[in-house]
Amino acid sequence: MNAAVATPASAAPIETDAVVIGAGPVGLFQVFELGLLDLRAHVIDALPVAGGQCIELYADKPIYDIPATKVCTGRELVARLLAQIEPFAPAWHFGRQVDTLAKQADGRFLVAAGSTRLLARAVFIAGGVGAFVPRRLKVDALAPFEGTQVFHAVPGAAQLANHRVLIAGDADAALDAAIALANESTARPASITLMHRRDEFKAAPETVAELQALRAAGRIEFVAAQPSGVRHEGSRLLALDVLGADGASRSLPVDTLLVLMGLSPKLGPIAEWGLALERKQLVVDTASFETSEPGIFAVGDVNTYPGKRKLIVCGFHEATLAAYGAAARLFPGRPIPLEYTTTSPRVHRALGVAPPGDSR
Amino acid sequence: MNAAVATPASAAPIETDAVVIGAGPVGLFQVFELGLLDLRAHVIDALPVAGGQCIELYADKPIYDIPATKVCTGRELVARLLAQIEPFAPAWHFGRQVDTLAKQADGRFLVAAGSTRLLARAVFIAGGVGAFVPRRLKVDALAPFEGTQVFHAVPGAAQLANHRVLIAGDADAALDAAIALANESTARPASITLMHRRDEFKAAPETVAELQALRAAGRIEFVAAQPSGVRHEGSRLLALDVLGADGASRSLPVDTLLVLMGLSPKLGPIAEWGLALERKQLVVDTASFETSEPGIFAVGDVNTYPGKRKLIVCGFHEATLAAYGAAARLFPGRPIPLEYTTTSPRVHRALGVAPPGDSR
Repeated sequence: MNAAVATPASAAPIETDAVVIGAGPVGLFQVFELGLLDLRAHVIDALPVAGGQCIELYADKPIYDIPATKVCTGRELVARLLAQIEPFAPAWHFGRQVDTLAKQADGRFLVAAGSTRLLARAVFIAGGVGAFVPRRLKVDALAPFEGTQVFHAVPGAAQLANHRVLIAGDADAALDAAIALANESTARPASITLMHRRDEFKAAPETVAELQALRAAGRIEFVAAQPSGVRHEGSRLLALDVLGADGASRSLPVDTLLVLMGLSPKLGPIAEWGLALERKQLVVDTASFETSEPGIFAVGDVNTYPGKRKLIVCGFHEATLAAYGAAARLFPGRPIPLEYTTTSPRVHRALGVAPPGDSR
Repeated sequence: MNAAVATPASAAPIETDAVVIGAGPVGLFQVFELGLLDLRAHVIDALPVAGGQCIELYADKPIYDIPATKVCTGRELVARLLAQIEPFAPAWHFGRQVDTLAKQADGRFLVAAGSTRLLARAVFIAGGVGAFVPRRLKVDALAPFEGTQVFHAVPGAAQLANHRVLIAGDADAALDAAIALANESTARPASITLMHRRDEFKAAPETVAELQALRAAGRIEFVAAQPSGVRHEGSRLLALDVLGADGASRSLPVDTLLVLMGLSPKLGPIAEWGLALERKQLVVDTASFETSEPGIFAVGDVNTYPGKRKLIVCGFHEATLAAYGAAARLFPGRPIPLEYTTTSPRVHRALGVAPPGDSR
């Protein structure tokens, strides 16, 4: 746990019952279980959409072990969970990575993710394998140019007109960008160079074929190389030094560098919050899935306990008991009864559904 | 644990990896998780069909908290789980209540349910609230006549021709039976008497209306009373002594007594197997959901542990870790890796599905 962080007077944080860090399947179901107990949640995720690993790693691949769902893709699973939690309308904060989790004097937690600042009574870390952040080239000297000449998404073509564009990557994202720029009719770059450590690609076969045709036509240059350094003049990046697969060093002039090498999960600040860890996993108590810090819970792939298996079905259970654990903490002295969704009028009101008929 | 029970030479038990006691939703998912680990299961249930409480208590009522299933009825949930476990084709033993669970000299378990005799390497008690057995009248002296003159289902009408039939119950099953017998044209009973402690019924309104019409026509007699004893001559039941709602005692002559008061769960022999219990629940370890007897696991509503909530979503997790716990026990020294259903060729073979395309 960080020492209490002073809240800048400029931004009063939003007060809420719960913050869920991570919008993967377990984070989404966490919102549902909190909702059943009348607890409102804000959800933060580094990705621009809900789904986490389900979307990032197997959006279109089948999952067979979600109970009562014979088969669904990662994307379908996320869509179903989003439909299920709709009645509880969480507040979403996408594209933000949590940088601060700090206990306040009153026992609440300040959760900050860039300009998003939340003050929560309970925090649920459903961080999976960490935040999905763009893979970067392993050249520290590129850091000062991030956001001005180095990007991890493709800017509008107009912004690249007459630029010498260098694209790093070997999968669909990089090839698609190179091909789109080569086919750009009005705002054409001065040159388009694709760089990967070897002349092999992981993109779809038809995409690779299109790339090869554009290479043959001289509209895209390919360089098999790895970056070794930069050349710059003050705050302006001039060129990327590379070591070629052929062993030769060269310098690639560049106005704009697009690093389109996919996303990779990064545990990031979770490891630095002072919570008990075991092999980079958050240690939890299996009665409530609370971490070593009372009020902070961890569910899904990010936690560990005896018998832990990194399966979505287990995360659903963990989120369920974590919600009860948080409710017991937030409403001390008030018993939290088990109410079945089939029969509880309170739950039916919360879900906005009609009570079942009394036909039985 | 019972002392080892001698196996009668007459019936060699069937050998199997696993026996699952209880075919409710958690027992069904237990079969699935065992199947993913290449373990074959036999399933025993006291009811004539799969589904347990889902079918017995809320077959047509909505459930909202199955993850990724926004709403489904109890019946639908069971149908989905049955479809999901189909590739693992468990052997079903319905309508049988387990009466013996006994450890054998070789460490395996004899599981007997009437004439069904199984010899298993691991046992999974997914017994829910117990076996659903017919509710009985609280008159011990009726026991000797069970199966000869006292029944919990309606025999063929031919068997009741000219009988004085007494029916106990106030819900659809009892009323439907009384009405059907009153409308019987060929094999009519000598008399039909419906008995319940008061003149009120829980059946569907149209069924109650039909009953009242038949009472008004003198074809069904109704008695508001509770049983107090029996009259018999040797092994023949002659009459049921009752105490009327009006305070008067009387004796109702009877050839056949149909006790149609629904089913009620009965923990039954589970409580007598010598396993550690806490408030009638089986105590389990949350790493593997193993009971106090190594090799016997308990999942779903029948178990207890710190934080336990009797929810289906929790049972799914418990069944998952129990399967891994059993696999670790059955294959000592062999690591049981976590394989994702999305990517494991072994799992795809087990499920009989094609591997996903490599389009990503």
